[in-house]
Amino acid sequence: MSVIDELTGELARLPGIGRKTALRLTFHLLKAPAEEAQRLSRAITAVRERVRACERCGNLTEQSPCAICTNTRREHGLVCVVEEASDIMAIERTGEYRGMYHVLGGRLSPLDGIGPAELNVRPLLERLKEGEVREVVLATNPSVEGEATALYLHKLIAPAGVRVTRIARGLPVGGDLEYADGVTIAEALNGRREL
Amino acid sequence: MSVIDELTGELARLPGIGRKTALRLTFHLLKAPAEEAQRLSRAITAVRERVRACERCGNLTEQSPCAICTNTRREHGLVCVVEEASDIMAIERTGEYRGMYHVLGGRLSPLDGIGPAELNVRPLLERLKEGEVREVVLATNPSVEGEATALYLHKLIAPAGVRVTRIARGLPVGGDLEYADGVTIAEALNGRREL
Repeated sequence: MSVIDELTGELARLPGIGRKTALRLTFHLLKAPAEEAQRLSRAITAVRERVRACERCGNLTEQSPCAICTNTRREHGLVCVVEEASDIMAIERTGEYRGMYHVLGGRLSPLDGIGPAELNVRPLLERLKEGEVREVVLATNPSVEGEATALYLHKLIAPAGVRVTRIARGLPVGGDLEYADGVTIAEALNGRREL
Repeated sequence: MSVIDELTGELARLPGIGRKTALRLTFHLLKAPAEEAQRLSRAITAVRERVRACERCGNLTEQSPCAICTNTRREHGLVCVVEEASDIMAIERTGEYRGMYHVLGGRLSPLDGIGPAELNVRPLLERLKEGEVREVVLATNPSVEGEATALYLHKLIAPAGVRVTRIARGLPVGGDLEYADGVTIAEALNGRREL
């Protein structure tokens, strides 16, 4: 197998990249300046060598504990529970949240063999025992599995006596009633608030 | 800048890959088995180290002259002129062509500052002087620049006394008259053939 086929094959393993796109990317990397290809190759190696999970929250970071956990200007009494570290990045991008995080590393999904034991739950409970946390925001995805995971965590956390909240479901901003699905509209109606 | 941002930035430089896709790919590479990320990183380096242009036809290859140029079972009297090496792969995939190739390395495009001097034309003329070639198929793209390039090459090659042909334009197989553009339909009519 030629190195061109090899690179195309490796690129085609990436999610959302088909055979044709992989071939286009291979030719791009062959024609691009040598440093550009080199930088990409090195960045892939570096990310695997230097990034790991924060020992405290599970965020992906180059130093553990991560910059969020060690930031004394953030609210340490507020913990947002997410499925994946990538969700942290999405929330941070809003600039609206100033609390801590906890990464589950997935969601309950019996069909995929993912039960409570596969999720990073125990460290969260340990953290609540420390007594500093006063609210846990459950920010798992608004999918069937994400909801089930939130319900499960709610039951588990309730005895600790902290406030447990769930992110709101409703119409996405810029969305359109006409095109929204029924379940979302129902949630938007149920979650209506006083103006 | 963190290594995550670095990798995302490098991925976002690839054609057709936006910021969001780049981030998704970065997280995929962080979660994938370490060997998968390593293989991709190495394949990028290997392709740049080992692939170069064939000294004879300009095809991308690991050994020069390339496997097509050195294949004695192919027709050496027939040369297909293409814009890029990636076009060779597209033609080879059909399994219908048994001749040689010549890569121009682009097409005439005055607006981008690409004139005849920027294209790999002289080696083609040298090759014709050797006397073995009896037909040149101009397979530049059926775009405005590709047509102009084909016309230019035709004038240049004609004095050498070899047959010069142009790939056919017409309706793509599986296409639909109703949705085809007028220029393509006109070409299909002009290029009609006896049944």
